[in-house]
Amino acid sequence: MPLKGYSGPLSASGRGGLVPAPPWHYSCDFLIVEYSTDADAITALLPAELEPAERPDMACVIFADWQSCSDDLHELEDPIQSQYKECFIVVGASFRGEPVSRCVYIWVDKDFAMFRGWVQGFPKKLGSIHMTRSFEVGKAACRLAPGTRFGATCTANDRQIVRAVVELEGISETGPTVNAPPMFNTRHFPAAAGLEPTVFEMVRAGGYDRDSTEIWEGPATLAFGENTLEDLQAIAPREVHRGFRFSFAYSVDGVEVVGPHDREQLR
Amino acid sequence: MPLKGYSGPLSASGRGGLVPAPPWHYSCDFLIVEYSTDADAITALLPAELEPAERPDMACVIFADWQSCSDDLHELEDPIQSQYKECFIVVGASFRGEPVSRCVYIWVDKDFAMFRGWVQGFPKKLGSIHMTRSFEVGKAACRLAPGTRFGATCTANDRQIVRAVVELEGISETGPTVNAPPMFNTRHFPAAAGLEPTVFEMVRAGGYDRDSTEIWEGPATLAFGENTLEDLQAIAPREVHRGFRFSFAYSVDGVEVVGPHDREQLR
Amino acid sequence: MPLKGYSGPLSASGRGGLVPAPPWHYSCDFLIVEYSTDADAITALLPAELEPAERPDMACVIFADWQSCSDDLHELEDPIQSQYKECFIVVGASFRGEPVSRCVYIWVDKDFAMFRGWVQGFPKKLGSIHMTRSFEVGKAACRLAPGTRFGATCTANDRQIVRAVVELEGISETGPTVNAPPMFNTRHFPAAAGLEPTVFEMVRAGGYDRDSTEIWEGPATLAFGENTLEDLQAIAPREVHRGFRFSFAYSVDGVEVVGPHDREQLR
Amino acid sequence: MPLKGYSGPLSASGRGGLVPAPPWHYSCDFLIVEYSTDADAITALLPAELEPAERPDMACVIFADWQSCSDDLHELEDPIQSQYKECFIVVGASFRGEPVSRCVYIWVDKDFAMFRGWVQGFPKKLGSIHMTRSFEVGKAACRLAPGTRFGATCTANDRQIVRAVVELEGISETGPTVNAPPMFNTRHFPAAAGLEPTVFEMVRAGGYDRDSTEIWEGPATLAFGENTLEDLQAIAPREVHRGFRFSFAYSVDGVEVVGPHDREQLR
Repeated sequence: MPLKGYSGPLSASGRGGLVPAPPWHYSCDFLIVEYSTDADAITALLPAELEPAERPDMACVIFADWQSCSDDLHELEDPIQSQYKECFIVVGASFRGEPVSRCVYIWVDKDFAMFRGWVQGFPKKLGSIHMTRSFEVGKAACRLAPGTRFGATCTANDRQIVRAVVELEGISETGPTVNAPPMFNTRHFPAAAGLEPTVFEMVRAGGYDRDSTEIWEGPATLAFGENTLEDLQAIAPREVHRGFRFSFAYSVDGVEVVGPHDREQLR
Repeated sequence: MPLKGYSGPLSASGRGGLVPAPPWHYSCDFLIVEYSTDADAITALLPAELEPAERPDMACVIFADWQSCSDDLHELEDPIQSQYKECFIVVGASFRGEPVSRCVYIWVDKDFAMFRGWVQGFPKKLGSIHMTRSFEVGKAACRLAPGTRFGATCTANDRQIVRAVVELEGISETGPTVNAPPMFNTRHFPAAAGLEPTVFEMVRAGGYDRDSTEIWEGPATLAFGENTLEDLQAIAPREVHRGFRFSFAYSVDGVEVVGPHDREQLR
Repeated sequence: MPLKGYSGPLSASGRGGLVPAPPWHYSCDFLIVEYSTDADAITALLPAELEPAERPDMACVIFADWQSCSDDLHELEDPIQSQYKECFIVVGASFRGEPVSRCVYIWVDKDFAMFRGWVQGFPKKLGSIHMTRSFEVGKAACRLAPGTRFGATCTANDRQIVRAVVELEGISETGPTVNAPPMFNTRHFPAAAGLEPTVFEMVRAGGYDRDSTEIWEGPATLAFGENTLEDLQAIAPREVHRGFRFSFAYSVDGVEVVGPHDREQLR
Repeated sequence: MPLKGYSGPLSASGRGGLVPAPPWHYSCDFLIVEYSTDADAITALLPAELEPAERPDMACVIFADWQSCSDDLHELEDPIQSQYKECFIVVGASFRGEPVSRCVYIWVDKDFAMFRGWVQGFPKKLGSIHMTRSFEVGKAACRLAPGTRFGATCTANDRQIVRAVVELEGISETGPTVNAPPMFNTRHFPAAAGLEPTVFEMVRAGGYDRDSTEIWEGPATLAFGENTLEDLQAIAPREVHRGFRFSFAYSVDGVEVVGPHDREQLR
C-alpha cells in the first residue's frame, strides 16, 4: 500500500495530512513597528553564517492577520482551515555582504500554520494574537484615515509577549525597511535521539505574485513582556521608530535551501 | 465607601467591571442564511406573550464578526477588548398582531459580549465561531464579487452547532427579512435560591445610528449539528432559502422593557 | 406554550439552558496562598454594609480545579460539562461585628461556571488557569510529600493575573483562615437600560455536605500581574504568608439573601 | 556566535526553544477503549514495511491526561509548561513476523507536546480533549469503584473526533492489548521545496522507568465523528470491546530509528 501525504498523518489516500501540498496562497493585513535595540543581543540570535547588518541595532515586530489556502482554494469556505494570526520579530543581518533579514521569534494561533512554518524555517510557537481591524461602517470601524489607532497584542504560554499601537498619519513613502531584504531562516528538525538535529540548513524565503495596498504609517508605541520563556527583554525596544499598516498577498511554493549550517556552532 | 461599576466586579473606582457602561458602538460583517423548518418547533421556543408569525416556519442563522467599544472608544486599540464573533438563530413571531423576531439561541466567543448579551435578553453561551473574510489583495482575498463563497461555522461544548456557505450572486433587492422586525427577547436572571427567576421580562432590542453597506445575496447551504446540548435538530432546515453578506453598524444604549413575562408559563 | 428552564435559553422542553437547576455537587483540588496587603485598598472593595476585618490587611488567592454536576450526575461522563478551573481573590471583612469574607475578583474557564457564579454573587470573568496536579506514579507525579512544589497561574484578557507556588512542608494544624468565615458576596444584574442595576443584593454563600482531605501547608511565593484591566496592583502582596493544598467537596442549593444593598453607594 | 537549542527558536543561550532537550519524564491517567473495525481500512494506514496484524481488525482509542517535564523538573511548578491532554488511535500491525502497534492519528492541546510528537513520529494535530477525573472527596469525585463512568471527548478543527465512555467493573487481568506491542511510527518532515520529504524513517518508540497503577476495566461505548478532516469513518467501530482506566508513567530519551522508509510508496 502507498503511504501518501505532503505531511503526516500519512495514509493511502493522503487525506488527513496536517498541511496540504504547496503552493499556498496568502492574503493578510499587516501591522508593523520598527525599533532599535541592543545590537549585541541581535547578533546573539544570528547563526555563524550571518553577519550583523549595517545598522545592527534595527528590528521590527510584525503582526499579521492571515487568510490562506492551497491551490484548489477549498480552505476558504471553511475558515477554521484558512484563517490564523501571527506575531513575529524580524532583525536585519548580512550574508556575504548583502543585506538579509531573519525571523528570530514567531507565534501563531493555528496548528497547520505552525507546522507550515517549521517546514519553511520559521520557529513557530502557539500564541494568542489580536489586531484591530478596519470595518466598512460605524463608529467602531477604525477606518484607514489619519488619527485612527490600530493596536495589536500577542500572548504565549499565558505571558504577554508584545503590545503595539500605531496611529495612522499618512501614506508612507518608503514603507517598512527592516523586513524588506530576503529573509534567511533556519530549518531545524531534531533527531530521533540525541541532541544533533537531523535537519539544520539555512533557507531563503521567497514567494511570488506579491501584491500590496498602499502603506499607511505613523508614530507607534511598542512594549515587550517580562517573564516570558524567551529572553525578549534582551531585544526589547530602546527606541521605537515608525509603525506601518497595509494589506499584502503572495504565494509560496517552498523555500530555497541556501546551504547546510555549520554544525560546529551547536556544540 | 462607594461600590461602583456598571457591572461586577464592583469597586470604589468602578474600574474592573466586566462590561463598561453603555452606550456601546458596534461594527460588523454579517453572513445570514434564511431557511424554513417545522413551525411547531419554532412555536415551542416562543413565550406565551408571542404568537407564531404569519409565516410560522421561517428562521435564519446569523453569523457576525464584531468590533465594538464603549463611548470613549478605548477598546478599539486593545482588540481583545473589542472583537468577538457570534452565531445566532432568529425566528419570526407576532406580538399583538405586529410582526416581531426573537433570538432563540446564540453563541459568542468573549466573556464581555456574553454578559452584555444576558443584560439585553440574548441567552448567550460560549462558542467557537469562524467566518470567511474579505481581504484587499491576493488569491485568498475572497472579494465581494459573483461566485465568491463565504463559509461560517460554530461549535460549542466541542459539538458542531452549525455550518453555512453562501455563494455571492449579486446585490440583493430586499436583503434578509426574518430578522428585520423589532426583536423581542427575554431578560432572565435566576434567583439566589429556588427555581423562580428574579428577572423575567420581555424586552425590545433597539439601537440607533444604524448603517449598512449594500447587501450581497446568493444561494446557500446550511446544516445543524447532531448531539448538541440544545435541541437544534427540532429546528433544523427543511428548506434552505437565500444567503446574505454585508457590513453593518449601530449603537445601543440599553433595551426597552415591553413588560414582565407571565410567570405561570414557568410552572 | 410554557417557556421553561432554570436559565436561558428557555424553551418548552427546558433543555438547552446554560445552567441546569440546582442542587449542584462539587469536588476540587485547592491551592491557596494567604498574604497581607494595603488595608485601605481592601476596604475600597467592600460595600457600605461591610466593615474592615479585625486584620484589615489580610487576603488570599484561591486556585481551584473543579469537577461539578447537577443532581442526576449526567455531566460527569461528559467532562466538558463538568470540569473547570478558577482563580479568585478573597478578602476579610466584618458584618455587624461578625467576621465574614468576600470574593472581590474571580476568573473561570467555562461559560456555565461563569454564569452560575453571577447567579450566586461571584463576579466572574473568563480566564486561563493552570494548576500543578498530583498523579499516582512517575517522576512527574508531584506527590503529596514534603518538598513537592505546586504552581498555579491565571491569565485573563491575555494579561497575566497571578502566579503562585507553594512548597509542601507538612500537614497544617489550622488550614487557611482568610476564606474560612461565611462569604458575603453581591448579586448584581444591570438594568435593561440605564445605570441602576435591576438586582443589587448581598448574599451569603452556604453549601452543605462539606468534605475535605487533610491540608498540606508550606512556604509560598505570589505575584500579581501589571497592566491588568482590574486594579490588582492596589491589592498586590506586601507580605506573602503560607500556602495550602488540599481537596474539597460540597453541594450548593442556592445562596441566602442577606438583604438589598444600599443603592446610595452607587451614585 | 553559537546558535544553540534542542529545538528552534535557536539562540546563543539556547533559552527559548519550543522543546527542552530530553530526557522527558511523563505521568498520566489513561482511558482506553479497544474496538474492531474494517481490516482493510487499517491496512490502508500502514506503511509498506508493516504487514497487517494477526487480528488485522483491532484498534484502540487512547485518551491521556499528561503531566511531563524535562530532567530538571522545572516545568512542574509552571503547569502550562507541563500539562496537556491527548487522544490517539492505535492499530495493530506486524513487522518481520513480530507484532507491533502504530499510532495512525493523534490530537494534543499544547504546542510543545505537538512538536515533541513530530520529533518522535507521532503525527500530532491540535485538538480539544476532555477526560473525567477522579477526585478525593465528594459526590462529583468519580472514585475508582465499580459503576463509576469515565467519559472522554476529542474535537479538532471544531469537528467532534471521538466520544467514549467506560464504566468501571473491576480490576483487569490482562489490561489493554492492542497498544501493548512496541510502537512503530513514522518520522516525516517535508522538504524545503517539493513533495519529497527530507525525513522519512520508521522509528520504534521506547521509554524506560515504566510504572503503572492497577488497571480497571469495564464495558465501553465509542463513537467517531462525521465530517472530520481525516477519514475517521473508515476506521469507525464495528464492535466496541472493553474499556480500561489506569495511571501510567515513563521516561523517554528519544526513539530508535528502525530504518528509512521505502520512498517508492510516496509516488
